[in-house]
Amino acid sequence: MRTPRGAPVEAALTKGRLEALADGVFAIVMTLLVLDLRVPELAGSPAGAELARRLLELWPQFLAYVVSFLVLGIFWINHHFMLEQIKRSNSRLAWLNILFLMFVALVPFSTSMLGRYRLEQATAIAYGLNLLLILLSCLALWSYATRNRRLVDSEIDPRLVRVRKVTPLVGICIVVLAMGLSFVNPAASYIVYSIMVVALIVFTGLGLHERRSSGTSGGDTG
Amino acid sequence: MRTPRGAPVEAALTKGRLEALADGVFAIVMTLLVLDLRVPELAGSPAGAELARRLLELWPQFLAYVVSFLVLGIFWINHHFMLEQIKRSNSRLAWLNILFLMFVALVPFSTSMLGRYRLEQATAIAYGLNLLLILLSCLALWSYATRNRRLVDSEIDPRLVRVRKVTPLVGICIVVLAMGLSFVNPAASYIVYSIMVVALIVFTGLGLHERRSSGTSGGDTG
Amino acid sequence: MRTPRGAPVEAALTKGRLEALADGVFAIVMTLLVLDLRVPELAGSPAGAELARRLLELWPQFLAYVVSFLVLGIFWINHHFMLEQIKRSNSRLAWLNILFLMFVALVPFSTSMLGRYRLEQATAIAYGLNLLLILLSCLALWSYATRNRRLVDSEIDPRLVRVRKVTPLVGICIVVLAMGLSFVNPAASYIVYSIMVVALIVFTGLGLHERRSSGTSGGDTG
Amino acid sequence: MRTPRGAPVEAALTKGRLEALADGVFAIVMTLLVLDLRVPELAGSPAGAELARRLLELWPQFLAYVVSFLVLGIFWINHHFMLEQIKRSNSRLAWLNILFLMFVALVPFSTSMLGRYRLEQATAIAYGLNLLLILLSCLALWSYATRNRRLVDSEIDPRLVRVRKVTPLVGICIVVLAMGLSFVNPAASYIVYSIMVVALIVFTGLGLHERRSSGTSGGDTG
Repeated sequence: MRTPRGAPVEAALTKGRLEALADGVFAIVMTLLVLDLRVPELAGSPAGAELARRLLELWPQFLAYVVSFLVLGIFWINHHFMLEQIKRSNSRLAWLNILFLMFVALVPFSTSMLGRYRLEQATAIAYGLNLLLILLSCLALWSYATRNRRLVDSEIDPRLVRVRKVTPLVGICIVVLAMGLSFVNPAASYIVYSIMVVALIVFTGLGLHERRSSGTSGGDTG
Repeated sequence: MRTPRGAPVEAALTKGRLEALADGVFAIVMTLLVLDLRVPELAGSPAGAELARRLLELWPQFLAYVVSFLVLGIFWINHHFMLEQIKRSNSRLAWLNILFLMFVALVPFSTSMLGRYRLEQATAIAYGLNLLLILLSCLALWSYATRNRRLVDSEIDPRLVRVRKVTPLVGICIVVLAMGLSFVNPAASYIVYSIMVVALIVFTGLGLHERRSSGTSGGDTG
Repeated sequence: MRTPRGAPVEAALTKGRLEALADGVFAIVMTLLVLDLRVPELAGSPAGAELARRLLELWPQFLAYVVSFLVLGIFWINHHFMLEQIKRSNSRLAWLNILFLMFVALVPFSTSMLGRYRLEQATAIAYGLNLLLILLSCLALWSYATRNRRLVDSEIDPRLVRVRKVTPLVGICIVVLAMGLSFVNPAASYIVYSIMVVALIVFTGLGLHERRSSGTSGGDTG
Repeated sequence: MRTPRGAPVEAALTKGRLEALADGVFAIVMTLLVLDLRVPELAGSPAGAELARRLLELWPQFLAYVVSFLVLGIFWINHHFMLEQIKRSNSRLAWLNILFLMFVALVPFSTSMLGRYRLEQATAIAYGLNLLLILLSCLALWSYATRNRRLVDSEIDPRLVRVRKVTPLVGICIVVLAMGLSFVNPAASYIVYSIMVVALIVFTGLGLHERRSSGTSGGDTG
């Protein structure tokens, strides 16, 4: 555990606890989303059809819940992959990780906006801004860790380093575009966000980003 | 850690973090249930018997708390057993896990409905729908992991694979039946749900599902 | 990992995840206590002395926060010690653990009562009932695990087994006594609860329960 | 796992669970901060510019969120470093850890005050008091663990021991000074707090505290 004199003691900052903090924050943020789904308040005792009607009226909240849960899923898997490749840890990585989590923890707020004021431009901008901050901190974390192979394996596949830089960069461009479109029509922003989310789920879910950097894969496809 | 060229890098997605995220979500969902138990608000200062009476009136909320805690316990233990058998992990498994957690995280909402509008058909349907989504995602996760022994030990006991497929399937049938019964009487749905919950606790608690697939067991019974 | 045929597969249920779920629940329950401390709402903009006065009026809530945090600390440390000694795990242990957590998760409710209605008998009874349920489930868990050395080391020090049975039993007697005293005066219950909490902190904090079963201890005593 | 007779059984209290509880509490406290950011309630359906204006008015809440997130980041990293050096664990360490977490868990309350009543002296005092309690418990934990090298490596670098005692002591002095300044002007307190937070982030982020005690560091400086 003790590093030889001259080596940075910093390196002792164990990666495991960065992951534990991140898993905790993600688990809580995902679960807090449900607090925005409020059971309708009805005065009369036999609520009947009125209750069913009021429940169905909650669809924008349910949709916002599903979208944000999936967005958080995308970032959790990405964080997971990045830390899988990161072999050492230091204070600055811990701070970049905390910054990333600070923006992730804002998702319940943006989601609440989405559920309540989905037709407003302010919502499209706020949600986009939140995505932007998460993407930027993702990029910063990965760039810091891989510059000169600082915290990763020195023999890491360069394509793997590149693909994890290009993906958030593309995401940033798309989000900026979508935020611009909100000046025309907020709905247009949402369409762009949705396409991006679906594309990222397909991309990570099919493991395409992995396969591009690992040649032919074994029997775990399909 | 680096897999030989040709092997899927995906496999590097460590199972431990899937479990950590799941444990976090379950712990939070279980604990959020308590937020629905609200201390009665009384105007007068010496509340006395009025406070006791108001507390006792909370029994439907307390009952809903206990039922949902036990339901979450059942699914947590099941998730536990499934991941115990799953030896490898990849992006698609991570996504199926996230889907599962997305439905688990809805339990505080359904529980809140149960505590407030227990006599309504809408509640019986909503609670059933939540159970249905959890059961379906459980089944999807296990089917994906075990098809062609994709992510499990290739010498896994086939009865173990089967029993973990049949159990959610039976659960799905019972829940659909109970949802149908709600058209006659919501109370009938609850009776069916309750029998199912008790049966599953006995089933997992006595370790019957384990014993069926492991022959005679040692000295840890009863 | 695969147990030889005939041995219970149940044993595969890893203790680590029981601990992870428990740590998660304790962390959340402890933190939820803060939600009961509400920042006073004042109409006027320069609140001044009025704000300070209103903050000081929150003392019963702060006291309830501290007491419940310490109570949770006692049970967390106890759970910790029990699971330290438990070497194997099975479904029934998992269920007893879930039952224990179900009662632990009620603490924010009892604490809220304590902060709001500290002078009422209903509160003294409710808080006592919560402690009672936690203590009973603690006792059940330890008794189940140690009967015939079911899940513990067969060479465990018998005094260690006994002291962990006697402590909750004594606690149960004291709580029942305190609940009885509430019929005379709720304040009397609180005095008994407080003495018990302080005694348990001293008992666990000084490591007396450990020393009694381990002979002379090394240099870590203060 | 069993310690030889005569050695303290206490030592069996695994450090891992102290860390798990702490990571859980920090993750939840960080995430609860978002609950104070409330989406504005507007009556009219096309909210438009009004919504944007109301969002921008939330800036004090957003600022309080960022500040407290960073403060929690500082203490999490510090806790991390302390437990990295602590090699053994016992009941008293567990209690000091719980005490530390009890004060950390109050941060959402102080933050809420900061977001709502930032111009009031009561807020400057309350926030300072919270920082003071956290710093004191940090100091107590480290002093207890390192006195006579009780729970740390006996060959630990003495400068490392000292720097982790001096840092909270300096922090305590600064906070007391800032609390005193609040009698002149609350804004003066905030300026002092802010300088301290920024200094600590730079200090830990640049790894200065590490480098002072480890000689020349390797290639991870950026």
